[in-house]
Amino acid sequence: MVIDKKSVEKKYSIGVDLGGTNIVSAIVKYQGKIVNRLKVPTLAERGKGATIKRIIETIHKNIVQSTIAPGDIIGIGIGAPGPLDIKKGIINFAPNLPGWRDVPLKKILEDEFNMKVVLENDANAAAWGERCFGAGQGVNNLVCFTLGTGIGGGIIIDGKIYHGNNCGAGELGHMTVNKDGPRCNCGNYGCLEAYSSATGIKNRIKNRIKEGIKSEFLHFDSDDELSESLRLKSIFEAARKGDRLTSDIVEEAISYLGIAIANIANILNPEMVVLVGGITNEGDKLLIPLRKEVRERAFYSNYKSLKIVIGKLAGNAGVLGAAALLWIPNNYSCRG
Amino acid sequence: MVIDKKSVEKKYSIGVDLGGTNIVSAIVKYQGKIVNRLKVPTLAERGKGATIKRIIETIHKNIVQSTIAPGDIIGIGIGAPGPLDIKKGIINFAPNLPGWRDVPLKKILEDEFNMKVVLENDANAAAWGERCFGAGQGVNNLVCFTLGTGIGGGIIIDGKIYHGNNCGAGELGHMTVNKDGPRCNCGNYGCLEAYSSATGIKNRIKNRIKEGIKSEFLHFDSDDELSESLRLKSIFEAARKGDRLTSDIVEEAISYLGIAIANIANILNPEMVVLVGGITNEGDKLLIPLRKEVRERAFYSNYKSLKIVIGKLAGNAGVLGAAALLWIPNNYSCRG
Repeated sequence: MVIDKKSVEKKYSIGVDLGGTNIVSAIVKYQGKIVNRLKVPTLAERGKGATIKRIIETIHKNIVQSTIAPGDIIGIGIGAPGPLDIKKGIINFAPNLPGWRDVPLKKILEDEFNMKVVLENDANAAAWGERCFGAGQGVNNLVCFTLGTGIGGGIIIDGKIYHGNNCGAGELGHMTVNKDGPRCNCGNYGCLEAYSSATGIKNRIKNRIKEGIKSEFLHFDSDDELSESLRLKSIFEAARKGDRLTSDIVEEAISYLGIAIANIANILNPEMVVLVGGITNEGDKLLIPLRKEVRERAFYSNYKSLKIVIGKLAGNAGVLGAAALLWIPNNYSCRG
Repeated sequence: MVIDKKSVEKKYSIGVDLGGTNIVSAIVKYQGKIVNRLKVPTLAERGKGATIKRIIETIHKNIVQSTIAPGDIIGIGIGAPGPLDIKKGIINFAPNLPGWRDVPLKKILEDEFNMKVVLENDANAAAWGERCFGAGQGVNNLVCFTLGTGIGGGIIIDGKIYHGNNCGAGELGHMTVNKDGPRCNCGNYGCLEAYSSATGIKNRIKNRIKEGIKSEFLHFDSDDELSESLRLKSIFEAARKGDRLTSDIVEEAISYLGIAIANIANILNPEMVVLVGGITNEGDKLLIPLRKEVRERAFYSNYKSLKIVIGKLAGNAGVLGAAALLWIPNNYSCRG
């Protein structure tokens, strides 16, 4: 898709980041300026129809609030959890959106808004956002890890999103890093996600609490309080103070993430690895031990030429990347 | 590089597979027919100059024996161990070729033969051979594991060799599969190569012999006999009979190779994984447990759409792939 640059510069597109907890929708100007942004709870528990209605209402509200003429909006890009059929624009199934089975979201939104709609995997959208407007501007060979509740990934090769044979590429969180490791949500054992995602870290801490190991720094009286107090920030702080309960687990979480990045360095030899998501708030406290692990494990020339950085778009990587799907030539069909 | 097809069909190219033990050189006709093939010992211990002389002599002999007019030969492709500077055609360093440091092999052969010369990583050449003439014909999205003394890899994306940012992609043997595993030749611990290469398997068996574990099926009186009798075929046969010494090690070798393939399936979602090298003589005895491991670990849709096959070119994948570098549009410069 190549669009005449002059006409594009005047135009806008809409990016939507559909998550299990929130829907973020934004009207974005060419070159990544957010004109109007809305964040509403997904309320996934109310069912598929209610969530689709919320997506539609939020986009309409975006347009009205922005006072931009719908004719100046070239389309809608959606980053959604998968598995997806990107070619057809269908969400096949989404673990965090109960009842979503084979939902033709592209067609639904095209009918509603009468504009072009593109569906993309949420981690690919985040990678694309960082590639177009964030840490990876001008980098054609980039791998993005989305480190949140789960761990996803997006791979940019030759300046395009790499989808693989049937749109299943980039499942970086499901690299097996320890064959006898803890069970992962995907059914496998010892996935990166089971060690280094927020959920993985918290589950491992909870298991140790059950085993009777006490924390010197984290305090809670009930299960609810436990969940609440187990915020990543507090966990990392406790670990740094040498807390018995958390320090091994945090150390392993970083070590396994380093192994996964080293594997990516040896397999794909990218120019850049971009990390996005909650855990990246740790900044250098994350990056320094991570780089050490990668240096020890990857081929030296692959390590030396690799920039390992934190994304620059914070919570907006997904929504900006989704909007950018409409403008910037990429590859959003699978290769198979 | 696009060559007029009619003129190409009449032409030949020369493929060279430069290994630590043997040099294989062949004159190859368009579409992969080997017209003349020579295999000579590398004699790497005699030094760089002697080996280069042998390469040149072998190619000259190829041309003379084939009776093909040098004017009908469009060039020479070389698959060589790395690290290489593919752009400049320089072998930077090769662990199995003592004394080779920054050897401008491309220029040396261009000066000698006055024809186009292309240098490529040996595992990439093997992958390219299988892609052009072997198991991967018509497959645009393919990953090849070369399972020999070491483990290498070649990645084909969109029908082209994928080199990564500075020609370091495809080091599949150096995926960390067990963070606390045995030390690998690369300096890291727990690489796939340390478990599943011929050397890895043999080293692990030797270590167990030192620990006093005896084999019921493999017999040897001295260290030399031990090395000789430890042939992969005998090891796998003994393991299948339930041999105490070998069965765990063979099982782990296959299991870790399965994990590496599952990781590739989740990261790259290729259409095909092609296995080449000595261990593939085991055929279904290798493939069946390997596929089981991948099925248990990879995302189901990534596993289901993935063909895991043994290469069809036996020992000629490298030499055919090297020859094909001259004809078939690929990408032999790095992307960085």
